[in-house]
Amino acid sequence: MTRTVNIGLVGAGTVGGGVLKALRRNGALMASRLGVRLHIAQVAVRSPKKKRDFKVAKGVLTTNWKSVINDPKIDLVVELIGGTTIAKDVVLTALKAGKSVVTANKALLAFHGEKLFAAAEKSGANLYYEASVAGGVPIIKVIREALVGNRVTHLYGILNGTCNFILTKMKEGLDFSAAVKLAQQQGYAESDPSLDVDGHDAAHKVGILASLAHGFWVKPKEIYTEGISHITPLDLEFAGSLGYAIKLLGIVKKSKKGPLQVSMYPALIPRDHVLANVSDVYNGVLVRGDVVGDTLYYGQGAGRDATAGAVLSDIGDAVLDLKHGSTDRLKAFTPHESNGEVRPIGETTACYYMRLSVLDRPGVLAKVSAILAKNKIGISSVMQPEGHEGGSVPLILMLHYAKNAAMAKALKAIVKLSSVKTKPVLIRVENFG
Amino acid sequence: MTRTVNIGLVGAGTVGGGVLKALRRNGALMASRLGVRLHIAQVAVRSPKKKRDFKVAKGVLTTNWKSVINDPKIDLVVELIGGTTIAKDVVLTALKAGKSVVTANKALLAFHGEKLFAAAEKSGANLYYEASVAGGVPIIKVIREALVGNRVTHLYGILNGTCNFILTKMKEGLDFSAAVKLAQQQGYAESDPSLDVDGHDAAHKVGILASLAHGFWVKPKEIYTEGISHITPLDLEFAGSLGYAIKLLGIVKKSKKGPLQVSMYPALIPRDHVLANVSDVYNGVLVRGDVVGDTLYYGQGAGRDATAGAVLSDIGDAVLDLKHGSTDRLKAFTPHESNGEVRPIGETTACYYMRLSVLDRPGVLAKVSAILAKNKIGISSVMQPEGHEGGSVPLILMLHYAKNAAMAKALKAIVKLSSVKTKPVLIRVENFG
Repeated sequence: MTRTVNIGLVGAGTVGGGVLKALRRNGALMASRLGVRLHIAQVAVRSPKKKRDFKVAKGVLTTNWKSVINDPKIDLVVELIGGTTIAKDVVLTALKAGKSVVTANKALLAFHGEKLFAAAEKSGANLYYEASVAGGVPIIKVIREALVGNRVTHLYGILNGTCNFILTKMKEGLDFSAAVKLAQQQGYAESDPSLDVDGHDAAHKVGILASLAHGFWVKPKEIYTEGISHITPLDLEFAGSLGYAIKLLGIVKKSKKGPLQVSMYPALIPRDHVLANVSDVYNGVLVRGDVVGDTLYYGQGAGRDATAGAVLSDIGDAVLDLKHGSTDRLKAFTPHESNGEVRPIGETTACYYMRLSVLDRPGVLAKVSAILAKNKIGISSVMQPEGHEGGSVPLILMLHYAKNAAMAKALKAIVKLSSVKTKPVLIRVENFG
Repeated sequence: MTRTVNIGLVGAGTVGGGVLKALRRNGALMASRLGVRLHIAQVAVRSPKKKRDFKVAKGVLTTNWKSVINDPKIDLVVELIGGTTIAKDVVLTALKAGKSVVTANKALLAFHGEKLFAAAEKSGANLYYEASVAGGVPIIKVIREALVGNRVTHLYGILNGTCNFILTKMKEGLDFSAAVKLAQQQGYAESDPSLDVDGHDAAHKVGILASLAHGFWVKPKEIYTEGISHITPLDLEFAGSLGYAIKLLGIVKKSKKGPLQVSMYPALIPRDHVLANVSDVYNGVLVRGDVVGDTLYYGQGAGRDATAGAVLSDIGDAVLDLKHGSTDRLKAFTPHESNGEVRPIGETTACYYMRLSVLDRPGVLAKVSAILAKNKIGISSVMQPEGHEGGSVPLILMLHYAKNAAMAKALKAIVKLSSVKTKPVLIRVENFG
């Protein structure tokens, strides 16, 4: 007789509804692939009378998430309410009760990952979170399983679909606020877009990937994070004329010795690089392993169906682990370089694009380059775009590798120059070397 | 105490040597990730005295592969000798003895997959074959696990690094035989390159992917296969001027009803499509799932290290399955649409690029288009490139969707026209719709 796994869903909003619809359509196919029938036993929601675009059997909806976890029939809990308050209670309670949990909640993991992993470890249950990073891109499975024999020396990720959509539209000519508005109209951005555009959502994700690849848990506050709100169409245009695109790029870099770079900031990347062609709401992750070399993973980074697909992948793994009594087969997190640490941003190096707004008079470049030279920062090219006239004109400098601390020091001095108007725009350049 | 898994390696050539080197470098890391120590207990080779670029402990080398399988200490056999004769004996003997096997052998799987799976099923051992398709790209894991909740409606793959290298070099101006020679010099092509350039190696791979996605075993003879030896730099140039690249493209397409298209042929693809930017020896696979949408996987498709990386991934899975006594957790192959069948190529449809060599006189196009019209094939554009003079000139026609059978019929009639010189070049066009 085919075994049945009873699933309790907590949260049936956008993603939860997508999971229910997909299970209705492909549940039989999954059962034939897994050798296990999947049954949605309970679904906890806030408003049971709300109109929804999916059907569940009578008696399945409840407003009490605790009843879902306490139901002895239920083998597996799927948490899809988001946030870090009730969701934390849901996941911890389930894990403590020895029930494995599937979640799409990256913020919960980023802030409370270690606590959740400890609870899972203690009870022998497992926590699955493929859907927490890069939507339909199976990057967590790839890092933990496919690359198990590799040291990940470099990881570069476009991990926030909202920012990528905004930057794509800005490249097409919209300014930042118009692009944000369009993203909101199309359902890609929240009414308060700051968690996305300030880079924090993407930083949570790159932190999870860094942790899995390097075996120590990276905390959100350790991740240097810049958003994209200071980027202008002018920068996209100048970057384009220099052969670059601008992307919000997560970076995890391991040098032979010493701490790990884990950061999330906008970067100029060569226009012909594969990641430069990851547009709109798509995500892309380039992982360089010391054995396999460069590999790339690409797909929709957000949205109902892409995320639902990742949740189904986790349900598949969880179901096989339940079937074989091996819920601890691949633990939620396995520390394997527990002495790892994150390099402070000042100690990391980068190349730079610097856009100054300067008075159009002789001697300005001499002053700026003197400051750079004093801080041992080399200039690789200077561009003064034509067609800009008036009190101040743009001056673009492309700078060689320098420590971020040295660059910050130089910038402080440059800002003080009387010939430099408004705050300079400084964007790092990533050449994937 | 940490468990040790004893591994017996059969074959220590290019890939086997790569596995041994990688294990020496990253074995401790893998052990900390997996909670299992990996130990190379025996390595069977043909010539034990041959000079090799890796080290093994004393007494580990043997010339007798049977001793590897019969060694009661050995838990896991890794077959890396290639071919379908001795390799078949090795894998079958091991599986029958209840020992799980990791292999990189796509031809063995393509021709004898079902027999091997039956042997594994019977003894409860498992067969792992991530390295058999697309080198370091974890496409088998992705299809079986990450996309377990998806119906794969479309799969497009650049799966032969040698052909992709040759086409990349032809685009840079080399003719076919010069490009093959360069591939041989760089170690990408065999001295007899036919298995690669005739498309058969790639066809074996697309057959494996189609089988996994659709749940019935697709046999090599069911896969319509064309190679790239008839492609000329002229075609790459004309395709380029029409906005297309040419790639050897595996296609698996499922229409709502009826059989499955499984094919491997060169195709024009839009130059701005992500797969058009998969160059040199890289492989790329685009998988469209009915839940997650389009996802793409990219990496080195061949070569020692990329393949070794995939073997390590399989060793990781096998080791976890051994540790948890669940070697049948994810069976080597799970039929789930066992009534599936492959659509004969004549019944599939495609758009076409047709290059004719015609006499430069009025009336030729009228005759050709009359034949096409009679076979109900629409013309979307006609190009007569300038700068070609003499007895015959090129005439390019881009044709609308038509059944391959209708196109074959039209071609037969076109060939008979006295104004058409030499054999027409016909390349399908794939728009990923």
